[in-house]
Amino acid sequence: MAKKKKEVPITGITVSKEDDFSGWYTELLNKAELADIRYNIKGFVVYREWATITINKMYRKYEALLEKNDHLPLTMPSLIPESNFLLEAQHVEGFAPEVFWVTEAGSSGKLAERLALRPTSETALYKMYSLWIQSYKDLPFKRYLSCQVWRYEGKMTRPFFRGREFHWIEAHDVFATMEGAMGQVKQDMEMTYQMLQDELAIPIIFFERPQWDKFAGALKTFAADALMGSGKVLQLPSTHLLGQNFSKPFNVKFVDKDGNEKFGYQTCYGPAQSRNYGAMIAYLGDDKGLVLPFDLAPVQIVIIPIIYKSKEDLILSKAKMIYNKFKDEYVVKLDDSDESVGNKFYYWELKGVPIRIEVGPKDIEKNQVVIVKRHSGEKFTIKDEELQNFIGKIAENYTKEIKEKSIIDFESQVECVYEKDAAIEAINNGKIVCCGFCSIDMDAYRCAEVVEKEIGGEVRGIRVDEEKHEFATCLICGKPAGCTVYIAKSY
Amino acid sequence: MAKKKKEVPITGITVSKEDDFSGWYTELLNKAELADIRYNIKGFVVYREWATITINKMYRKYEALLEKNDHLPLTMPSLIPESNFLLEAQHVEGFAPEVFWVTEAGSSGKLAERLALRPTSETALYKMYSLWIQSYKDLPFKRYLSCQVWRYEGKMTRPFFRGREFHWIEAHDVFATMEGAMGQVKQDMEMTYQMLQDELAIPIIFFERPQWDKFAGALKTFAADALMGSGKVLQLPSTHLLGQNFSKPFNVKFVDKDGNEKFGYQTCYGPAQSRNYGAMIAYLGDDKGLVLPFDLAPVQIVIIPIIYKSKEDLILSKAKMIYNKFKDEYVVKLDDSDESVGNKFYYWELKGVPIRIEVGPKDIEKNQVVIVKRHSGEKFTIKDEELQNFIGKIAENYTKEIKEKSIIDFESQVECVYEKDAAIEAINNGKIVCCGFCSIDMDAYRCAEVVEKEIGGEVRGIRVDEEKHEFATCLICGKPAGCTVYIAKSY
Repeated sequence: MAKKKKEVPITGITVSKEDDFSGWYTELLNKAELADIRYNIKGFVVYREWATITINKMYRKYEALLEKNDHLPLTMPSLIPESNFLLEAQHVEGFAPEVFWVTEAGSSGKLAERLALRPTSETALYKMYSLWIQSYKDLPFKRYLSCQVWRYEGKMTRPFFRGREFHWIEAHDVFATMEGAMGQVKQDMEMTYQMLQDELAIPIIFFERPQWDKFAGALKTFAADALMGSGKVLQLPSTHLLGQNFSKPFNVKFVDKDGNEKFGYQTCYGPAQSRNYGAMIAYLGDDKGLVLPFDLAPVQIVIIPIIYKSKEDLILSKAKMIYNKFKDEYVVKLDDSDESVGNKFYYWELKGVPIRIEVGPKDIEKNQVVIVKRHSGEKFTIKDEELQNFIGKIAENYTKEIKEKSIIDFESQVECVYEKDAAIEAINNGKIVCCGFCSIDMDAYRCAEVVEKEIGGEVRGIRVDEEKHEFATCLICGKPAGCTVYIAKSY
Repeated sequence: MAKKKKEVPITGITVSKEDDFSGWYTELLNKAELADIRYNIKGFVVYREWATITINKMYRKYEALLEKNDHLPLTMPSLIPESNFLLEAQHVEGFAPEVFWVTEAGSSGKLAERLALRPTSETALYKMYSLWIQSYKDLPFKRYLSCQVWRYEGKMTRPFFRGREFHWIEAHDVFATMEGAMGQVKQDMEMTYQMLQDELAIPIIFFERPQWDKFAGALKTFAADALMGSGKVLQLPSTHLLGQNFSKPFNVKFVDKDGNEKFGYQTCYGPAQSRNYGAMIAYLGDDKGLVLPFDLAPVQIVIIPIIYKSKEDLILSKAKMIYNKFKDEYVVKLDDSDESVGNKFYYWELKGVPIRIEVGPKDIEKNQVVIVKRHSGEKFTIKDEELQNFIGKIAENYTKEIKEKSIIDFESQVECVYEKDAAIEAINNGKIVCCGFCSIDMDAYRCAEVVEKEIGGEVRGIRVDEEKHEFATCLICGKPAGCTVYIAKSY
């Protein structure tokens, strides 16, 4: 049940994030005008202006990072002929239940072949790769698409987290050797840490997913899980070692230095921008509304004149002076609307603007302004001559400060357990469980089913970074443990 | 027939643009690796890396311009329920023959309602506008989408010019009055001039299209036509005065200052980025390949070391020094591959890199480099100490220089005629005809049909900017002329 808080204007969030995450998230989406679920196709939502601006900024950052790591952009058709789609058997099996099909066009009626709205682009791209890649000189071949994909999701949709149309980047790389491909998987994970942790301030941990939970057609899947504040994890970008599983059916071959024709080794990597956005606002937000990393905020500084009748001109002209001082370097908004000062405070806090500068009559007299940092609520009174420096420092440190708070939260949520009952209790208490497990190969699937049914969580896989814990036996079957896994509920 | 030129390496263009525009364009697309038509759905092509980079730059510039003019971005689903689609009768009639329909999904089979792949977004967006717009305070309401659209084209497709999936921006604005809407149409035309003429160096003329050639559902359509070098025009961005044609069926209402509920006045504007790109490369390109505006070139400066064995280190180190000098300000490529110097020259000319810097042994001795400007082929020998300044000047003036050449070309292609035979001759000679015409209302459609059948051109409409010519009679029926129109062949 949503608890109502006191003293919040109608525009503010009324549900507490801690008490009712779902209710809080829904209110945040509506009141901060981030998404509109009233579009009349189930599972399809409108991303509104404030969300689109930030998602676009995320795209530009991710694209720059991919290009720095030698990827080039491509633009692919969004329709895939059914005949392409059928070439890799596991892939078909995994994606067929989720495909939207175009079957008719214009007045001519039925098409000769069904066309899939891409649920992912492997089967569109790799036909082209087989034409473009000829020689070892063409390798590594690293390309990315910024696009949307469509999946007829059976699960409950939730704006940004899971929808039937979502916006992502997909990178598809080809190498001459398996080692080259594995090196790319590592680079993909590094890029994910850089973007998710450093830029979006979301703490993540990479897991090698169990074989029963890998990308359809991959050899191995490595996925980032983030803790979302309600004890659940959310899968964020994942990268997949495809090996030669696709290069063989799609004929992605090259002539090696030794003159022999060989199949390429492939990887694919899918950082979903809209889902990352959802994770970020859900993770960083608080009961006042959005908290946004400085670079990603649609407005970075809001200036609020606190008008008193006799000093109106003085106050407004100082506010404008401050606006002009910062407008070239930051995205600044001067809110000189007719709303009350209190409503303005609430509104821009809801919108997650990192810095508020208040200009009141007392401040004019004392040659100062009041500055409030959104993420912490800290308030500073700053002399005019120190303003530029002070804003510069906040801008520089704002995202780092959010990140520091986030990291601590994550580690505290993990609990090591040695018995099933303890695991059940930990999961019920909103913890991530760390425990011994047979393996993550298909033959451990039975133990995973027990985890799902009796513990109420999912095996997320083996942690990719350094693993401190060691367990003697599998939590479920009691046989000698082959690995350490993490168990959590997921979105 | 394509004439073969001499002395061109296998990587270069072999067809002359003047002799065979179509053959030249196809070779340009293939050899400069801009588009790949081998994707296995008819009318759907891959935009390759070099094209995608430039198109992305065009998007960023257009988006910045729209935002400067008070537009905000939105992200809409790309599917539209058939029931939305049917709300505006003329719109349905115009677009129905071109719609791709999604009718099936996953294993569940048939969908309850057919979903259109958006051919344009009016019928998706305006349902949302009716929810978002309440009061005159919400107006003007100006939004844009950067997205792709799908149209099941009957006409011949040609990469970038016309395809069954293309990439554009669509801006959809709502005003309290018809004057407000008409003001937006003017702003849209100004933005088009700014982007097309100043940034892309394509000369355009805006025409108010005849009523038989307007956007389906609009009151009036204003479209930019560009001359493409082979006597044909190409329609580039167009802006449409919708009036209340959509606001009524879609219920886009607001409460005005006087307390009364009124329907909004709307405009929509659709600058197609992929088509603008096609027009740009077709218009600016020459028999060596691409010519690109400086800001839009994926690589702006290429440095080519001319290696002589004994001086290899010296030359390479000077080339690297120059690379380092410019790499922060421009996109620079140092081509130290094994290809011959001649092949490198041809290759980067083909790719349209604006500035080539050559570093040879003689240049080292004389503390100089050789610089070649792509668009003019001009060659300069520049002392090392003047290099920075000189490059800065080329960068600043390069696009302006291209534009100056372009503008002259356009005006010279127009011919005023007073008789049908003269019109036929002018059209056959690759001219745009300027003549008297009854009107551009529906009752002049008969004369327009004669133009199409007997003259072999299309009535493009009334020129929006100042019109110098005056004609007494309609070219076709001889009745008193109601207006001056232009006739041309079009792509």
